[in-house]
Amino acid sequence: MFITLEGPEGSGKTSHVPYLVETLREKGYTVFPTREPGGTSIGEQVREVLHSLKNTEMHPRTETLLYQAARAQFVEQVVRPRLALGEIVLSDRYADSTIAYQGYGHQQDLEQVRALVKYATGGLVPDLTVLLDVDVEVGIGRKTKSKEWNRMDAYTLEFHQRVRAGYLEMVKQEPKRWVVVEAGKGWQDVQEKLRETIINRIIKA
Amino acid sequence: MFITLEGPEGSGKTSHVPYLVETLREKGYTVFPTREPGGTSIGEQVREVLHSLKNTEMHPRTETLLYQAARAQFVEQVVRPRLALGEIVLSDRYADSTIAYQGYGHQQDLEQVRALVKYATGGLVPDLTVLLDVDVEVGIGRKTKSKEWNRMDAYTLEFHQRVRAGYLEMVKQEPKRWVVVEAGKGWQDVQEKLRETIINRIIKA
Repeated sequence: MFITLEGPEGSGKTSHVPYLVETLREKGYTVFPTREPGGTSIGEQVREVLHSLKNTEMHPRTETLLYQAARAQFVEQVVRPRLALGEIVLSDRYADSTIAYQGYGHQQDLEQVRALVKYATGGLVPDLTVLLDVDVEVGIGRKTKSKEWNRMDAYTLEFHQRVRAGYLEMVKQEPKRWVVVEAGKGWQDVQEKLRETIINRIIKA
Repeated sequence: MFITLEGPEGSGKTSHVPYLVETLREKGYTVFPTREPGGTSIGEQVREVLHSLKNTEMHPRTETLLYQAARAQFVEQVVRPRLALGEIVLSDRYADSTIAYQGYGHQQDLEQVRALVKYATGGLVPDLTVLLDVDVEVGIGRKTKSKEWNRMDAYTLEFHQRVRAGYLEMVKQEPKRWVVVEAGKGWQDVQEKLRETIINRIIKA
């Protein structure tokens, strides 16, 4: 089973992963937590290029293609082998981030972006995707306070608003795959809702 | 005018560029010689990942996508601005290398590879492409003797034979854009043929 967490900046996704993994393991599931580029050496090298603050002249098509390169490696080297072993793969972001950021955020042709994502993933779609939804001002505020400020966060507020609207549109288009969890609430409430959502889906599968 | 040089490994393309540029400049043309990633800082960072001998686990789709990322940046940051100034851009390799190496060489779906290339280039096609054609054993022999051995050269002989056959197929498909120059002859003969081919095309344009 392949589960992904998505959300705009500051939705807190990353902070929830270790606790979700602990809960699932306590219940006896074999869980492999990951995020792109998932510890692949090649993906890490690409991530450095993407996140470097010096690369301000990066063209949006370059950015999209670099994300797809790291993703292709991630899918083949990490995700497919783990799924083949029968493990639950829990990924902090995946292909939907590209549709949200490059497609909706940068307003590139959505059909072209979807075709690229399909090429990069070889068609691998998650069984469950949880959107940690948060008001854009709240999310950006959280990130500014933290030390995790990178090149992606320096885009305008309008960009991040388009990203969030894009996510909500994707939920509408594939309501069976997506579940929305309100991430503006207290951390413990969000964590409980996440646990409940994921365990319910695993039991049903 | 946008001119590209293509060819399998060891065709000697790169050695001819400075002399072609000198000849064209003597004739009064403004020439901008380049090669992907064309001196873009982002492209150089991507090139390092592609050519590193340690990255042996690289998946073919990752490789294709990394080339496209460097190319998108090259087109927007180097080629289009120079063409807009009315200069002749002379590039050592371009999009056709991807069709030849990833499409024919790695035998990926040709239509998918062409779609990726179109996305990366934003549809920019050269006015003239010269194929420096050389027998594969001769070409590989030349490169083994030189110090320019990189990860790409370590593929099998069959791979390089598919690449060469792919180039010859592309010439058939677009005979107006392509000119084949036999690169197995002496260096001076090849250089003269290249000068003649390029100058004829410039005069006709």
